[in-house]
Amino acid sequence: MSDSLDLKAELQRSIDDKTKPLGALGRLEDLALQLGLIQGTRSPRVEDACIYVFAADHGIAREGVSAYPQTVTRQMVQNFLAGGAAISVFAKLNGMQLRIVDAGVIEPCPAHALLVARRIGPGTRNFLHEPAMSAAQCDAALRAGAELMAEARAAGTRVVGLGDMGIGNTSSASVLTSLTLGAPLERCVGRGAGLDDIGVRRKLDTLRRAVAARGTPPGARERLQLFGGFEIAMLAGALAEAARQRTVILVDGFIVCAALAIACELEPRLLECCVFCHRSAEPGHDLLLERFGAKPLLDLSMRLGEGSGAALAYPLVRAAAAFLNDMATFESAAVSRKSPP
Amino acid sequence: MSDSLDLKAELQRSIDDKTKPLGALGRLEDLALQLGLIQGTRSPRVEDACIYVFAADHGIAREGVSAYPQTVTRQMVQNFLAGGAAISVFAKLNGMQLRIVDAGVIEPCPAHALLVARRIGPGTRNFLHEPAMSAAQCDAALRAGAELMAEARAAGTRVVGLGDMGIGNTSSASVLTSLTLGAPLERCVGRGAGLDDIGVRRKLDTLRRAVAARGTPPGARERLQLFGGFEIAMLAGALAEAARQRTVILVDGFIVCAALAIACELEPRLLECCVFCHRSAEPGHDLLLERFGAKPLLDLSMRLGEGSGAALAYPLVRAAAAFLNDMATFESAAVSRKSPP
Repeated sequence: MSDSLDLKAELQRSIDDKTKPLGALGRLEDLALQLGLIQGTRSPRVEDACIYVFAADHGIAREGVSAYPQTVTRQMVQNFLAGGAAISVFAKLNGMQLRIVDAGVIEPCPAHALLVARRIGPGTRNFLHEPAMSAAQCDAALRAGAELMAEARAAGTRVVGLGDMGIGNTSSASVLTSLTLGAPLERCVGRGAGLDDIGVRRKLDTLRRAVAARGTPPGARERLQLFGGFEIAMLAGALAEAARQRTVILVDGFIVCAALAIACELEPRLLECCVFCHRSAEPGHDLLLERFGAKPLLDLSMRLGEGSGAALAYPLVRAAAAFLNDMATFESAAVSRKSPP
Repeated sequence: MSDSLDLKAELQRSIDDKTKPLGALGRLEDLALQLGLIQGTRSPRVEDACIYVFAADHGIAREGVSAYPQTVTRQMVQNFLAGGAAISVFAKLNGMQLRIVDAGVIEPCPAHALLVARRIGPGTRNFLHEPAMSAAQCDAALRAGAELMAEARAAGTRVVGLGDMGIGNTSSASVLTSLTLGAPLERCVGRGAGLDDIGVRRKLDTLRRAVAARGTPPGARERLQLFGGFEIAMLAGALAEAARQRTVILVDGFIVCAALAIACELEPRLLECCVFCHRSAEPGHDLLLERFGAKPLLDLSMRLGEGSGAALAYPLVRAAAAFLNDMATFESAAVSRKSPP
């Protein structure tokens, strides 16, 4: 603990010695400090970054809770792999690796260099009528997410961006958010990929009936089992393990934050390693950010998922590390300090 | 005009055809549209970018309106050239060229590959006692800024980021902002590079006396002559010409926006070409952004100048062009469209 206090003081001094008015880089200074504390060093390195997009299908999609047909999950996985999706373009542009994890899409995709098959099953069951997954499936998904992050760390990945794909997954995330925060369901339900007002009302009504039928268990793991998705459970496992590995975690939008709310109950020091990347237009995301005490780096009214917010914020993370590592000090550059008042 | 309307419709269709829910990339979609309209194309290119930092000294600095001694302007120019300043680090990180323009630092700097000497004089005069510059100097600075942007365009630069350096220049910018917007001076004066409360009161008092002594001319050029800085006048000339060249302009913080308020009176279509990059912590900046109807891409509580906000926002500009140019369409990727309601 005193080591950590010493490091914090050293990092702050290093930030303050740079040739700029005290605090003039604003939240980039907080971020540089956080990066140093996560990695336990005065010279954080953030070059080796990888986006993991966890994809899965959802039984609840059969209730018409999404604006898009369920086949789109698999079609988008193919699109990720072919390089045509937003996350494909952004990851490439910003020099990040990309891995697509099949956590349980209905129909498997052909093998591909970027595809990691960790299928728990062909989509979850419909949680309006039965638990989304079995306890064994939930544990397997949590474990698979953790294993992937341990492997990433062993391969030298210092920064992971986590994202999601799954038609129907805002329904799952809305219920989990509502139950985890104790917030009314109507404040956690939004348009997802583009529902109209009638669609939103139907979604809310469906989710209310599901919660009434399934109940509201107090434990995070039980909520995940009843209402989660395979990609959400895998994200929760990945988040908890990445924090144990002291990997810098780029947190995307609503779905990832819903998984994070679960994962925080499994790994108490998780938030220390989280860089909140963007504020989603989905209403439930604001509630989660408030609970985490987080102010994301970007606020661009995006609501895409895929880890797109994480990929877009990565250059800011690089900039924070770069100023800390590469800027001159007042001494080294022979720049005069502030005049005495 | 009908060409421009056609292009706008074509760009919007192209954006909407990409494999993502309608509008899901939020403000990045507005930015992609703007980039296409600036360049008059469905495939905007934003790879060749250069940051221009305009540096100059200010006579008003002798009144103790800054927390830093005046020698820091030249010291920081040396630091920019040596690669140790924030803008040096950020420009390099994000693949932008960097040019430092000596618009009138008190003592000239030795020649350097990145230094462009366009000195109007050894700093402005003290506008508490006399006009900051002559009409001829003001015109020369406006012209120099325009020439630099014409040269940049001829050399293939498609994106310019504009920044500033000058101890005392928030004083100049505060007066210009107050007079241009008709806003009370106290709402336009802030801590600059780090004044304490007593310092802010002294700064405000000094500026009030200066405005009382010099008067409040209605014309932009006259205000610039009385209260401007050489770097601010050069920025105004650069902004107006960059817009005439249909160059994408990355607008930094308070100083650049004060110059922009002046330049808008010289070039009416200027705002079309401006990408507002960040919201500065200086209070006058908010007033200017409101007048421009602008919502900047980043809001990170920064207050550094140097074009640092422009450099940090550039990856988002690249991302906007990249998704428009490189993402697959629903057709090309064989992804199903939204279900009928």
